[in-house]
Amino acid sequence: MNDFVAALPHRRAIAELPNSKIREVAELGMSSGVADIIPLWFGEPDVPTPDFINQAASHAMAEGHTFYTLNRGIPELREAIATYMSALHGYTISVDRITVTASAMNAIALLTQTLVDRGDNAVLTVPLWPNIAASVGIMEGEPRQIALNETETGWQLDLDRLFDAVDERTRLIFVNSPNNPTGWMMTADDQRAVLEFCRKRGIWIIADEVYDRIVYDRPYAPSFLDVAEPEDLILLINSFSKSWCMTGWRLGWITAPDEFGPVLEKMNEFNIANAASMAQHAGIVALREGEDFVRETVERYGRARDLVFQRLAGMPRVRLARPEAAFYAFFAVDGMDDSLAFAKRLLTETKVGLAPGAAFGTGGEGHLRLCYAATLETLSEAMDRLVPALS
Amino acid sequence: MNDFVAALPHRRAIAELPNSKIREVAELGMSSGVADIIPLWFGEPDVPTPDFINQAASHAMAEGHTFYTLNRGIPELREAIATYMSALHGYTISVDRITVTASAMNAIALLTQTLVDRGDNAVLTVPLWPNIAASVGIMEGEPRQIALNETETGWQLDLDRLFDAVDERTRLIFVNSPNNPTGWMMTADDQRAVLEFCRKRGIWIIADEVYDRIVYDRPYAPSFLDVAEPEDLILLINSFSKSWCMTGWRLGWITAPDEFGPVLEKMNEFNIANAASMAQHAGIVALREGEDFVRETVERYGRARDLVFQRLAGMPRVRLARPEAAFYAFFAVDGMDDSLAFAKRLLTETKVGLAPGAAFGTGGEGHLRLCYAATLETLSEAMDRLVPALS
Repeated sequence: MNDFVAALPHRRAIAELPNSKIREVAELGMSSGVADIIPLWFGEPDVPTPDFINQAASHAMAEGHTFYTLNRGIPELREAIATYMSALHGYTISVDRITVTASAMNAIALLTQTLVDRGDNAVLTVPLWPNIAASVGIMEGEPRQIALNETETGWQLDLDRLFDAVDERTRLIFVNSPNNPTGWMMTADDQRAVLEFCRKRGIWIIADEVYDRIVYDRPYAPSFLDVAEPEDLILLINSFSKSWCMTGWRLGWITAPDEFGPVLEKMNEFNIANAASMAQHAGIVALREGEDFVRETVERYGRARDLVFQRLAGMPRVRLARPEAAFYAFFAVDGMDDSLAFAKRLLTETKVGLAPGAAFGTGGEGHLRLCYAATLETLSEAMDRLVPALS
Repeated sequence: MNDFVAALPHRRAIAELPNSKIREVAELGMSSGVADIIPLWFGEPDVPTPDFINQAASHAMAEGHTFYTLNRGIPELREAIATYMSALHGYTISVDRITVTASAMNAIALLTQTLVDRGDNAVLTVPLWPNIAASVGIMEGEPRQIALNETETGWQLDLDRLFDAVDERTRLIFVNSPNNPTGWMMTADDQRAVLEFCRKRGIWIIADEVYDRIVYDRPYAPSFLDVAEPEDLILLINSFSKSWCMTGWRLGWITAPDEFGPVLEKMNEFNIANAASMAQHAGIVALREGEDFVRETVERYGRARDLVFQRLAGMPRVRLARPEAAFYAFFAVDGMDDSLAFAKRLLTETKVGLAPGAAFGTGGEGHLRLCYAATLETLSEAMDRLVPALS
């Protein structure tokens, strides 16, 4: 334990949590004072929340909706979520299964607290957003990383390796599909196989499907909700951040077996009480009136994907398959063995801000992540700048 | 472990967390369909957020402030908090010490995760809002409850008993002053003594001062900030909920030694990323333009306190001292040994909703909590209804 920890005593598990390497690059850029950096490091839409959603929040405040809400969210929002999901998935998803959370990140934190004891483990498919492993680490659980295989046509999961990682202390398998950073989607067949395996073992699946609508060849990505029964041990995480451009609002939801509701109610109470009241009211309108916006946004990302893929694929040092979903290009760079140092140098030399692959766990090193939720003009300029370094 | 836990497996520590007895009464009332219940069970102001604060949030959204923010909060809000606190306390409190959180509850959750390992203990003065003990329980720490003594003139803390409860596994002493539910305020002399003790032991003080402005004979309650040095092991929790009527917004802050900032930044990142962006912008305006509102609100609560105290003191079965601060009457009822059952019966018979003292830990049983953040008309009617049951 270093002096800092000793001087300001805190848990070793917290002191040992790595800082985000994504933020390490971003903060270098943001503190540099350089004006014309193109920041493609975070996973965030490039446009603010549409006005009709903002108006709903303003209206709710004017109506006096500024008090505590029920822990699991206001009934109208839970109803709106159940209605939205039922329409999307084509069968009735009961409102009793829905719990509103203050973001998908908060949902992950609540669920890790609920399921992972010290010495337990959680099996994660990686590359993966680093905060999941950190959340397991806070509870002194072991994050077991099972790396996807990178092939010429995309990323693939070896189910046998996934299942082999499970032992009697495994409490959950965490699957983020569509995946940040790779854009990988788990197939329905693989979802059925994982579900069947978990049913036999009595372990949970946490399905992080926050990018379910950011997909380019179908209305939504393969979902565990379409292969499972309502009583299966599945905790499905969604968010308003990506599809409705609401990152700043901190609003998400969990779909769970209905009998798990009281547990989630309690965990919300003891972590934050409830998501912000005006955000919840805005969420109702986002779901009810947001379909055109979601469709247009995904079309825009699709054009961005095509441009970025075409340009990157033409750079000699770059290897990548066309991303199937989400809004990232996660590409290998020949000869790069320290993605953090490389990303920092890229930032300085080209003023393009990317995330280092090493941030995303096993199999991530050797790659860079570029978020293409940006205008074609911005992306085109970024590509021009990257050519010398990646050729 | 009961069947439910086995069927939907989760940590025993979570299964064993008690539900809130306050909510047990409130949900009985809210689900009863009875229209004219007077709900004085929660700790919440009776009026919505003032319009000038709502307008600030609407303005921020219109300006496009709907994105992720820095983990510790937007710089303008941290500056506004430092300026506000420096003016209140009469000396400079550095912005480096300020971290914005998504409510005081979320601050408590973050800090417990940061400080309490399994087998550690946290010493709490009680009666106390039950969520602190629950938060310690989530981390499998032991909440050690040191009960205040109830005297004819108010509640008092026996420092020797507090210190005797500390051992080598004690990580923090938690002091909520002004106190929910008793209205007790720790004196500056006692704060100095606790600080001196904790300095010698190298343990933290978590000072929950969310009611610091709700006090009737001075501008703000005695604060650990006024007896400590910036580098002392003090984590001071504040909130926008009570003083600015912003319960629904989930916005608070921690004042810490500046070198602890990076730890809090990480814990925000891995729990919720940041408080809602529009709430943060509203918070700036609340601090800068809210002093008249705070003053008028406290004057209003002062009149409410006088009415409630006078009426309750005249009821034969009731014993209480005049509350010094916060907005609760926490009164003993002669012959009542099950406050939960009594509160439920009161609700049914009188349609007045109160919180059972048993919810607040050791020393709470035998009492009821009434939140007097309500109009004089409402409180007068509630008193009339309570007379038969408490005489």
